[in-house]
Amino acid sequence: MTAPLGRRVAAEAIGTGLLVTVVVGSGIQATELSHDVGVQLLANSLATVFGLGVLITLLGPVSGAHFNPGVTLAAWATGRRTGEGPGLREVAAYVPAQVAGAIAGAVLADAMFGEPLVRFSTQHRSAEHLLLGEVVATGGLVLLLLGLERVGRAVLAPAVVASYIGAAYWFTSSTSFANPAVTIGRAFTDTFAGIAPGSVAPFIGAQLLGFVVGLTAVTVVYGRRDRAATATTAATATTAAAATAAATAATVVVAPHDEPELASP
Amino acid sequence: MTAPLGRRVAAEAIGTGLLVTVVVGSGIQATELSHDVGVQLLANSLATVFGLGVLITLLGPVSGAHFNPGVTLAAWATGRRTGEGPGLREVAAYVPAQVAGAIAGAVLADAMFGEPLVRFSTQHRSAEHLLLGEVVATGGLVLLLLGLERVGRAVLAPAVVASYIGAAYWFTSSTSFANPAVTIGRAFTDTFAGIAPGSVAPFIGAQLLGFVVGLTAVTVVYGRRDRAATATTAATATTAAAATAAATAATVVVAPHDEPELASP
Amino acid sequence: MTAPLGRRVAAEAIGTGLLVTVVVGSGIQATELSHDVGVQLLANSLATVFGLGVLITLLGPVSGAHFNPGVTLAAWATGRRTGEGPGLREVAAYVPAQVAGAIAGAVLADAMFGEPLVRFSTQHRSAEHLLLGEVVATGGLVLLLLGLERVGRAVLAPAVVASYIGAAYWFTSSTSFANPAVTIGRAFTDTFAGIAPGSVAPFIGAQLLGFVVGLTAVTVVYGRRDRAATATTAATATTAAAATAAATAATVVVAPHDEPELASP
Amino acid sequence: MTAPLGRRVAAEAIGTGLLVTVVVGSGIQATELSHDVGVQLLANSLATVFGLGVLITLLGPVSGAHFNPGVTLAAWATGRRTGEGPGLREVAAYVPAQVAGAIAGAVLADAMFGEPLVRFSTQHRSAEHLLLGEVVATGGLVLLLLGLERVGRAVLAPAVVASYIGAAYWFTSSTSFANPAVTIGRAFTDTFAGIAPGSVAPFIGAQLLGFVVGLTAVTVVYGRRDRAATATTAATATTAAAATAAATAATVVVAPHDEPELASP
Repeated sequence: MTAPLGRRVAAEAIGTGLLVTVVVGSGIQATELSHDVGVQLLANSLATVFGLGVLITLLGPVSGAHFNPGVTLAAWATGRRTGEGPGLREVAAYVPAQVAGAIAGAVLADAMFGEPLVRFSTQHRSAEHLLLGEVVATGGLVLLLLGLERVGRAVLAPAVVASYIGAAYWFTSSTSFANPAVTIGRAFTDTFAGIAPGSVAPFIGAQLLGFVVGLTAVTVVYGRRDRAATATTAATATTAAAATAAATAATVVVAPHDEPELASP
Repeated sequence: MTAPLGRRVAAEAIGTGLLVTVVVGSGIQATELSHDVGVQLLANSLATVFGLGVLITLLGPVSGAHFNPGVTLAAWATGRRTGEGPGLREVAAYVPAQVAGAIAGAVLADAMFGEPLVRFSTQHRSAEHLLLGEVVATGGLVLLLLGLERVGRAVLAPAVVASYIGAAYWFTSSTSFANPAVTIGRAFTDTFAGIAPGSVAPFIGAQLLGFVVGLTAVTVVYGRRDRAATATTAATATTAAAATAAATAATVVVAPHDEPELASP
Repeated sequence: MTAPLGRRVAAEAIGTGLLVTVVVGSGIQATELSHDVGVQLLANSLATVFGLGVLITLLGPVSGAHFNPGVTLAAWATGRRTGEGPGLREVAAYVPAQVAGAIAGAVLADAMFGEPLVRFSTQHRSAEHLLLGEVVATGGLVLLLLGLERVGRAVLAPAVVASYIGAAYWFTSSTSFANPAVTIGRAFTDTFAGIAPGSVAPFIGAQLLGFVVGLTAVTVVYGRRDRAATATTAATATTAAAATAAATAATVVVAPHDEPELASP
Repeated sequence: MTAPLGRRVAAEAIGTGLLVTVVVGSGIQATELSHDVGVQLLANSLATVFGLGVLITLLGPVSGAHFNPGVTLAAWATGRRTGEGPGLREVAAYVPAQVAGAIAGAVLADAMFGEPLVRFSTQHRSAEHLLLGEVVATGGLVLLLLGLERVGRAVLAPAVVASYIGAAYWFTSSTSFANPAVTIGRAFTDTFAGIAPGSVAPFIGAQLLGFVVGLTAVTVVYGRRDRAATATTAATATTAAAATAAATAATVVVAPHDEPELASP
């Protein structure tokens, strides 16, 4: 019942794009309406919580709702061992779709608010402590995504991922980008949520480090997944990749007793 | 177990009316209490999230909780093919009830705050980028309503629709009217949430365009619904109309094991 | 498995009291921290949403979590016809407990913030449009409580009632007291959430009118409950009173498959 | 299927640490962005609601997600009678892990925001009415944790505990520390959420008194747990400790029909 690759790629592009539209658009609206930067970030973060939860709910069953090259790559890497997860062909299709979607999402937000469609951000975000913030933000996201699977609660992903981002906007100094595609997209707008192109590479570097930190934390808290256990739980979710996919596929707060498959194969 | 048309029409009128009362009333309260427009829109949007979720929960099982002529018309159009969805007689009853309810809702809000009962808005909302915002807002709503059905999660409609509107208040430049009846109702009040009568027609035009955009996005992401699939899932929700009805009918986060039918036929 | 009357009365007193403590206490904190009245009401309303949901979840299974003499009286009145609902002895115990609890809750809030334990409010709330706001607020609450039962969703009461109050803080001009006991309690504190003693009687009068409006709206939207239907659904919830009790008794978002009875009889 | 002690202790240290990181970090971000203390506390409290709910969801199934020496001690004390709950060896491992985690969490927050890693707070919080606030905050938390178990709703702990703290930030004058380990951790940062070392002991004293008040309230509202009832419900949750563990272990909003055990023993 897996959707054809074309639709899955479209879902990743549209999902990542609309995520950036929500982040950038709500940032513009907030700065137009308030002079208090705290109020601006409150609006920006709450709009993202609401929007991200909706997007994972809607698109998880189609593509897994990665919206994030790091998540797609982790799914591929972990999946190789067990023969599950996306193949290289899917990775090669997902990642550019995510990046292109993210850029288009920023342009759409600019267009809706009468801003220049593309004007690179002048907001430098390169202080070392911001990079530490990005490591923590990404590490926490990985701990969350894999942890949800390990405790059998992948079904809660939309609410839990959205809540996590809502907290991380505030408790990390970087306001938690935690996503290379979104970081690139946010370079294309010179508004509240923008990031200067020169800060993109350091941010992505910090995010990659955060992935490693997160994977380490998963092992510390949940232990190594042994083969027997993997076999036992394979039907539910064997790998990080499958876990994420399952999480979003099963993203309803409650699985209807006779949940229909996607109507169109 | 369908409610008689009279009660369904009453539910649409009362539901659309109270939705406008929530939007307009919270806008007035917010402008009376704060000088920071960001704080005003935060209050306005959060009150709408809370109120809309409650209204869909309560009235969905009676009328489908459309509260929106566009949704009613889409339900009729999609339903013609399959013989499901509302007939013309129901459309002809729902739409005027929604519009009349919306106007009454604005008047009630004005009355509660000691404003003139009817004073047409002087707030022009006609910049082109605002209309683009309205296209995006409505397209997203359609993608959401039909997508929820296609992935078998119509049961989550109250929380997901309310969350979507909470995000769209902020990420669209128009603050997301996305509803012709509500747009008309909001012309009758010269307060925070008002819209000048001259801006109503362009807004409704943009909303209609948004419906087309949304239907296209549904096909791109979820594919065409083929006949076999339709037959298979017919019991759950075959058309946009039925989907919305089912969504709201089944709107409990979890269906109690012995959920009683509506007590009165 | 009904709790003995003593514990039920204690639950009503403590629940109503802590509800007032949340409303009054968060109002004091908000006015101490911000000069923007919009921000104050945002904090006040969000704290009440969080607190009220918790209280209904915790105390519903013990006493029904009325916290409101109007709800208790409606339960008694509706229950007389069907032989269900509380008897006069219970009403006579609940109502004073609610009022005493409400007063004690205001005193506790004052004590926590170093305010005089009792100082009657000087905040007059008697403009006619405020009273209309109170009619609407109470009518909506009644439509909500009885409607949830009629559509078989009483299980969602904690989230839905809390959300409703969160919206009604903003969309009604009175900020939605909707509760005679809470109104009396709030007269005992001269802080943000207070109400001058002279405004209490008009507010309670408006609330009683709101109860009638709400009952009428229930009939318009859900129809009259006929005897057969009542018999059919009696096991779940036959009357307004039982409905409220059932709603809160079943207040978990999902009923665990083997939900234990209260451990102590 | 209990996790080995090492992983459980790691979960308590990481969970308590990240909780403090969320509280302290969001407090720093808020004070950097807004001059309105009300807006600062709104951001601080909402970030904590989101973050705490995520942490209980993720770590409850591993360690019980106590994050609080008071909860751990109460679990030990109550468990002694019934032979359930943690033993002294576990208490001796949990409590120092919680305290060390809390301190590390404050240091991490300081590091992310370029603050000195350790600078003791200069914010004195010793007024008597603040201590009363802390008694109420802790008493309410105990009533909540044990009450959830007594009504068979431990499954809702993540949402309900997070909501409670969201309310208690506002309705108590102390902003609700309610946790000795977190109180100690917050002494290590001279930022918004800090507490001067001299105020730590009085706060912890007030929290201990709050535990007693909470236990008394539980008996008043829910009655004494008799032996038979205990035996009956033992499988679900017999003691405060087990209750908390069960609550978090079962923390999904809905238990998937075939919820896998933790993949790694």
